[in-house]
Amino acid sequence: MEEKKIFLQCDYTQGCHEKIMNALIKTNLIQTNGYGEDEYCESAKKKIKERLKNDNVDIYFLITGTSTNQIVISSILRPYEGVITVESGHINQHETGAIETTGHKVIVITNELKLTSEMIENYILNQINDKLKIHVVQAKLVYLSFPNENGLLYSKNELEKIYEVCKKYNLYFYIDGARLSYALTSEKNDIKFEDLPYLCDIFYIGGTKCGALFGEAVVICNNVLKQNFGFNIKLRGALLAKGRLLGIQFYELFNDDLYFKIGKNAVDLALFLKSELSKKGIKFFVDSYTNQQFPIVTKEKYNEIIKKFEVTKWCEDDKLVTIRVCTSWGTTKEIIEQFVNMF
Amino acid sequence: MEEKKIFLQCDYTQGCHEKIMNALIKTNLIQTNGYGEDEYCESAKKKIKERLKNDNVDIYFLITGTSTNQIVISSILRPYEGVITVESGHINQHETGAIETTGHKVIVITNELKLTSEMIENYILNQINDKLKIHVVQAKLVYLSFPNENGLLYSKNELEKIYEVCKKYNLYFYIDGARLSYALTSEKNDIKFEDLPYLCDIFYIGGTKCGALFGEAVVICNNVLKQNFGFNIKLRGALLAKGRLLGIQFYELFNDDLYFKIGKNAVDLALFLKSELSKKGIKFFVDSYTNQQFPIVTKEKYNEIIKKFEVTKWCEDDKLVTIRVCTSWGTTKEIIEQFVNMF
Amino acid sequence: MEEKKIFLQCDYTQGCHEKIMNALIKTNLIQTNGYGEDEYCESAKKKIKERLKNDNVDIYFLITGTSTNQIVISSILRPYEGVITVESGHINQHETGAIETTGHKVIVITNELKLTSEMIENYILNQINDKLKIHVVQAKLVYLSFPNENGLLYSKNELEKIYEVCKKYNLYFYIDGARLSYALTSEKNDIKFEDLPYLCDIFYIGGTKCGALFGEAVVICNNVLKQNFGFNIKLRGALLAKGRLLGIQFYELFNDDLYFKIGKNAVDLALFLKSELSKKGIKFFVDSYTNQQFPIVTKEKYNEIIKKFEVTKWCEDDKLVTIRVCTSWGTTKEIIEQFVNMF
Amino acid sequence: MEEKKIFLQCDYTQGCHEKIMNALIKTNLIQTNGYGEDEYCESAKKKIKERLKNDNVDIYFLITGTSTNQIVISSILRPYEGVITVESGHINQHETGAIETTGHKVIVITNELKLTSEMIENYILNQINDKLKIHVVQAKLVYLSFPNENGLLYSKNELEKIYEVCKKYNLYFYIDGARLSYALTSEKNDIKFEDLPYLCDIFYIGGTKCGALFGEAVVICNNVLKQNFGFNIKLRGALLAKGRLLGIQFYELFNDDLYFKIGKNAVDLALFLKSELSKKGIKFFVDSYTNQQFPIVTKEKYNEIIKKFEVTKWCEDDKLVTIRVCTSWGTTKEIIEQFVNMF
Repeated sequence: MEEKKIFLQCDYTQGCHEKIMNALIKTNLIQTNGYGEDEYCESAKKKIKERLKNDNVDIYFLITGTSTNQIVISSILRPYEGVITVESGHINQHETGAIETTGHKVIVITNELKLTSEMIENYILNQINDKLKIHVVQAKLVYLSFPNENGLLYSKNELEKIYEVCKKYNLYFYIDGARLSYALTSEKNDIKFEDLPYLCDIFYIGGTKCGALFGEAVVICNNVLKQNFGFNIKLRGALLAKGRLLGIQFYELFNDDLYFKIGKNAVDLALFLKSELSKKGIKFFVDSYTNQQFPIVTKEKYNEIIKKFEVTKWCEDDKLVTIRVCTSWGTTKEIIEQFVNMF
Repeated sequence: MEEKKIFLQCDYTQGCHEKIMNALIKTNLIQTNGYGEDEYCESAKKKIKERLKNDNVDIYFLITGTSTNQIVISSILRPYEGVITVESGHINQHETGAIETTGHKVIVITNELKLTSEMIENYILNQINDKLKIHVVQAKLVYLSFPNENGLLYSKNELEKIYEVCKKYNLYFYIDGARLSYALTSEKNDIKFEDLPYLCDIFYIGGTKCGALFGEAVVICNNVLKQNFGFNIKLRGALLAKGRLLGIQFYELFNDDLYFKIGKNAVDLALFLKSELSKKGIKFFVDSYTNQQFPIVTKEKYNEIIKKFEVTKWCEDDKLVTIRVCTSWGTTKEIIEQFVNMF
Repeated sequence: MEEKKIFLQCDYTQGCHEKIMNALIKTNLIQTNGYGEDEYCESAKKKIKERLKNDNVDIYFLITGTSTNQIVISSILRPYEGVITVESGHINQHETGAIETTGHKVIVITNELKLTSEMIENYILNQINDKLKIHVVQAKLVYLSFPNENGLLYSKNELEKIYEVCKKYNLYFYIDGARLSYALTSEKNDIKFEDLPYLCDIFYIGGTKCGALFGEAVVICNNVLKQNFGFNIKLRGALLAKGRLLGIQFYELFNDDLYFKIGKNAVDLALFLKSELSKKGIKFFVDSYTNQQFPIVTKEKYNEIIKKFEVTKWCEDDKLVTIRVCTSWGTTKEIIEQFVNMF
Repeated sequence: MEEKKIFLQCDYTQGCHEKIMNALIKTNLIQTNGYGEDEYCESAKKKIKERLKNDNVDIYFLITGTSTNQIVISSILRPYEGVITVESGHINQHETGAIETTGHKVIVITNELKLTSEMIENYILNQINDKLKIHVVQAKLVYLSFPNENGLLYSKNELEKIYEVCKKYNLYFYIDGARLSYALTSEKNDIKFEDLPYLCDIFYIGGTKCGALFGEAVVICNNVLKQNFGFNIKLRGALLAKGRLLGIQFYELFNDDLYFKIGKNAVDLALFLKSELSKKGIKFFVDSYTNQQFPIVTKEKYNEIIKKFEVTKWCEDDKLVTIRVCTSWGTTKEIIEQFVNMF
């Protein structure tokens, strides 16, 4: 039998942070109502609102990221409306058409890795001028992930400008925070958690990739989007009978700032890896300051690495391979040192 | 503060059976691949196949019951096809239109509580004769739950006859086993677990209501339905990143017959309750031999009960209330005795 | 070669009224914009608004009845909402799931032939009380056809009461007027054309079954439903490139009251048939005062009839057959006399 | 009142060819069955099959082009499958999301104007290699229009190579022939009408843009795609009650080769326009040999032109405007000469 490799290919290779596991153990026999109408969900929502310093948001707990994107987007759009994103957007490339399944076009307006307010404005202006308007899907929502698929951040100013353009053209703005803890704890980040409700209409706080067994918390900031949101959860099959499991986990994530501690540990290790490899002359696909790093290695080095480590092959050409390495709540300095020593 | 009530309103009021919790704890730090491509899922599938004495089935693990029904049904039907059920069918009444959301009609052919082969045949014959055939949704799938929404069983002969009619008219047959453990362990049941692949085209083994934190195992028996099933899971948002959680739980449920032990405990307690209340002259809405019992009580008694117990109000008239009482893996004889002593 | 039968099975067996044909001929070479943005559509809308004595409605021209129902209903409902109807409703039984295809449940609340305000109120009250509300499709729209599938009328008072209940419970009310001309010209009808905008939120004026080659005119009365309706037409594939064809036809239908003259001719002949057959002791399935009549005949008589006439077999038992006979703009007294003489 | 402009902006500005109008007049009073089950539809299908020299195809008559694309594509794809096209594909840009509405992704693989077999093969190979396969929409269908949105043709060899690649990778191939008559009659075309069933799995013969009032004829060549196609027509609202109208029109289009005569007249005039403008030094956006021409003119010239002619503004920069000019069955040499004289 081959020796077990160390998994660095993604941030969901293990169960959950021990504080979460302990809470699940401790509450296991307690009886509650089903479908999220329990005291744990209530407490978790309260906790998140406190941390957001904002009582004017609605919070719903969902199970998977794709389901969250699908439910949020389909709950907002009318049949003739679509959602704007970049080509590499998760909803465009890695959800097997989960958005289109609900009847909506994913409108790709750039193959750049990040959206800008200018791109959105240009697209909308062009659309408005179209004489064939009735023949064209109407953009109504802007989607981006923070950090994005390549670990990149948006600055507060960038998001503000995007949100401004959205409001100018009656678009909603949705931020996918599948890896939100790694954005908020990055040294390059200038956005506070409590800023988020003022930067968009709706966002989600990722749990699955940030230390929970599973779970994502949707935060609805715009009152218009609050009405009847819950029905969409049930009709898309995402209403957990034992909804308490989500409440228990998110309570722990936001108790004593665990969510941010998990993020910081992972980001610190990722930047340590980046700095060490850089010293050794390794180049990176993008300049990420979050928990995902994308070193570019030779084919030979790649083949060496994958004998000991599981990593994601991001892209390749004849000679070089870009790999993705992710840190998480469970990653230790020893692991990263072992990885760095491969070079 | 009011004293905490005892919850008997459903079978998902607590976390999970301790064997499952222990397995989750034990495996928590082990690294695996995501999306169900891990060794726990493999082992669990193997275990279930062994218990089914059948290697010719495909098994997929899903998260919620509604999602399972939605994915199974939408993966089978073409746009002009619908699914036959009874009026009280879960897919008809309690899924917020999850089936219609995928574009398919739920075809109600009776308001009886159980389907019969005759009802199906009559419906189909009538449909075939219809001169306006092209104007009518084509039935292609038959759905029932075993036990059904009211805790009732189908006999082996009843299912055989239904499956025969299905094959005769080119329909598929799908059994929703959300509470399967309580059917298979009922004293009135004559169906063995290993019979199921011969009694239908596809069924699911309920975990959520039978001792797991969450999870349902779809078993595809008909080869025609196996192709590309997995894509449907992802596109409906139901592919768990840490899919291992489902494998770990289902391995435990089918290790050392835990699934059946959980079922037997609950059914025994439910029948104890039934027998004791019957002795006291209480009538029941239906003659259930599974973990759901539906005693009919006076309004006064109902008001007394709900001071101490949480139960589900099933239906009522001016004088009487039918309540649903459910037992589960966590129910003890003491709890049921306390309940019985209310009468 | 067998002699050509006379067709009485439906009201769309011929082309169109000669005035419409003449208008199509006359305008054939004139150039216009496409997609309904032409002067004929404008004139037709103006004409209808004048006849409705109402300038505060929006009018759209569509092609088929099923498409109209599909577009109207799907434009109104959110994903978790459904539409109330009777079992025999056209959208429930004869549209191959066109409503479910758009993701919405058709909620059957009765197997009576006609809806009443009481039925709707009871259904809603029951739904509101449901503790499992989030698990249930939310009724948001009431659908009925006037006249209905069996040629029956609603009185003004009946529609007023239904609309009142709708407003009380925040439901929209939609009237399918596929055969509207035959309702409005019936001797038993007490509703004026210009009453319709005050009796519902949206309705359609049927062209196909009332003398046009094809075409239905949707009239939106409630301002809330007006916004962006046109996009729904295009995305459902129902935006005719030569939209002018609909404008030309509807202008003629509402020029010099042709729509009502066509209706009156057909209804008069249908009632003549009814009266003559009644004298001969023939019973009818329902007491219709519109262009559809449903005589009940012996099997022997049925077999005799269908040698000379095409009729629709509506239902049958061992001895008797209920047939549907329809009159239209093209039906003459001679034809009906020939039919009557069969008895 | 301003003088009426001459419309050259598209090929559907007038009614229909007089032979079609005469047939509609002549048959107007004859009674037939509804929903396309009439002798005119039968004759038209027979006529088309004869002209195709192919009896092994199924033919269905539909109403609009968008509806045809929607019905064909949604009838073929499973929920996780998508359709490949170019960025300028009609289904991508000008159908208000009609394909996505049915739940399917439109997969844009190039922003070139024409597809090649290499592009398709590269896309598929890349997709097959993707480790995250289950997360990606599966391409199952290739769509192109012939001629395309910019009036360009595919050679027989190009289509053969595309179809080969399709068969190699289990993709279906669908050709949108909205303007088919103008392709088949182009001097640069090397494809015969009767070649089409051997060049793809399914295609449609455009009527609306080629001389009919409305109507498109779907030709299904691959047996696998024939089953139950008709149901899809009804459920998408596209089953015309007076289906005869489509049969009557298509019979005329294929009687005495009218379809090709209409095409040839329009193409000849378009090439005359092209040749005359070229002589005057005008450049064209693409080198089209069909009925659409795209001259590039100065802003000044553009403003002059649109005083007398309606044309489509295709795109523009600071100085130049590309316009689309279309000829059709109703265009005369005089009109084109008038247009040419503007330069």
